[in-house]
Amino acid sequence: MKQVSVIGGSQISPFSDEYKFAYEVGKLLAKNNCVVVCGGRTGIMEAVCRGAKEEGGLTIGIMPSYEGSEANQYVDIKINTGLSWNRNPIIVASGDPVIAIGGNYGTLSEIAYSFILGKTILGYKTHNIEGIIKIEKPEDVLRYL
Amino acid sequence: MKQVSVIGGSQISPFSDEYKFAYEVGKLLAKNNCVVVCGGRTGIMEAVCRGAKEEGGLTIGIMPSYEGSEANQYVDIKINTGLSWNRNPIIVASGDPVIAIGGNYGTLSEIAYSFILGKTILGYKTHNIEGIIKIEKPEDVLRYL
Amino acid sequence: MKQVSVIGGSQISPFSDEYKFAYEVGKLLAKNNCVVVCGGRTGIMEAVCRGAKEEGGLTIGIMPSYEGSEANQYVDIKINTGLSWNRNPIIVASGDPVIAIGGNYGTLSEIAYSFILGKTILGYKTHNIEGIIKIEKPEDVLRYL
Amino acid sequence: MKQVSVIGGSQISPFSDEYKFAYEVGKLLAKNNCVVVCGGRTGIMEAVCRGAKEEGGLTIGIMPSYEGSEANQYVDIKINTGLSWNRNPIIVASGDPVIAIGGNYGTLSEIAYSFILGKTILGYKTHNIEGIIKIEKPEDVLRYL
Repeated sequence: MKQVSVIGGSQISPFSDEYKFAYEVGKLLAKNNCVVVCGGRTGIMEAVCRGAKEEGGLTIGIMPSYEGSEANQYVDIKINTGLSWNRNPIIVASGDPVIAIGGNYGTLSEIAYSFILGKTILGYKTHNIEGIIKIEKPEDVLRYL
Repeated sequence: MKQVSVIGGSQISPFSDEYKFAYEVGKLLAKNNCVVVCGGRTGIMEAVCRGAKEEGGLTIGIMPSYEGSEANQYVDIKINTGLSWNRNPIIVASGDPVIAIGGNYGTLSEIAYSFILGKTILGYKTHNIEGIIKIEKPEDVLRYL
Repeated sequence: MKQVSVIGGSQISPFSDEYKFAYEVGKLLAKNNCVVVCGGRTGIMEAVCRGAKEEGGLTIGIMPSYEGSEANQYVDIKINTGLSWNRNPIIVASGDPVIAIGGNYGTLSEIAYSFILGKTILGYKTHNIEGIIKIEKPEDVLRYL
Repeated sequence: MKQVSVIGGSQISPFSDEYKFAYEVGKLLAKNNCVVVCGGRTGIMEAVCRGAKEEGGLTIGIMPSYEGSEANQYVDIKINTGLSWNRNPIIVASGDPVIAIGGNYGTLSEIAYSFILGKTILGYKTHNIEGIIKIEKPEDVLRYL
């Protein structure tokens, strides 16, 4: 099973472009037999898991707490780290490519670790850093699976 | 999906009682729709994943490295932590009960974290610590799922 | 500067044997130019830091939180990990010998990691595990510095 | 003792501006009774520790390995994490301000965590990210201690 990491902001509105984009990416990943790995929480993480579940996919949440009770309802497998923010490198180490959608400083830390670990990074409305491959439509991820 | 953690030695022989026990536990967990969470490597971890896969189950390896190339061939999902031995608490935080089979100091650290986190701990030929529920047959795990 | 790790229970009373023992060990370590590394919190950790400070020693607390505000008042340097319980292996990796005084499951996890990492482990009224060198008087640590 | 974190590239030449800058910052921090916290390795980390030691300061290395043998010769206290790259958030959580000098993706991850944790971030020839306070001379750090 191919694992793909999806990262992005937890605060993003369900009515935003970014949420819709992540949701469509989730559907595409599931249809293409990819497992979604993410931080398991709200915003982009919820969107991508929700999309994946609608197509019968499998979703993994790398959770900040030891209990995983903060997981969104579309997470199948909870990896409970107890590491708080320090879980971020695990999310990107566990998938390739890494797809960044929107996001703030947590996402920036994950992008940095993606570079450290030599991952392919696709970005939609995210940090503007050289080396990220900009994508415009959800379907653009298909070329990198 | 219920997640169950299985811990034990990486050095254990495929011809040992402990390996056979772990293999049977893996089969039972899969038949009972439980996801196996383990350290993803050799010995007991290989045995339980192998059993689970023979019954069509799902197996998760919490890997020490960033690449996960040390995973045994029966691991479906590789969570690549880069944490080396420090990954151990994640294994037991991500399942309940925790089933300890044989094992050395790595297993001892996982048992300690299982107590810290309030898990039910079942043990077969493992460390003799008060609070571990001793089991004798693979089927004994069924009562705790 | 030689670094020595001291581990033990956070709940221990200041009027207990264990507290007094840890306090005396702290004094001895400082007099012998050793830096105390510990978990930085209450109980045994407070006792050993307090003893060390009374003799002008240096104390390091490996803190569970990102802020370190839970440090006892005798900690000089706060290493703020944000790792919660997962900080335990760092405490024992950063000193040798490791001195275990009393303690519960947190201490057990640290003892396990001490074995994994090949440390010399001295124990006073702690877990009864083969390989721990039992000591009876604070002065007994001097032979292992 | 006030703790200040210094981050930057491990590959930087001893003949570069950045190395000289870090060395001078190390001297200033020591003269102002600040403890230097860094990643303990080569390049900027070596430079700042070297400067600090020439003025009798105290230096802490948050090491990637369990043994700390990769520490530069100017590190006084080795915190051996075994966390590899995942140690980065600990470096910035353990000091304030955070001073970034040059640097690549490791430094970017540390800058991201500095923002997450609400640190004051000073930067010299480093990543161009809004919110970093640009400094031009080593003495500029004095205003933030």
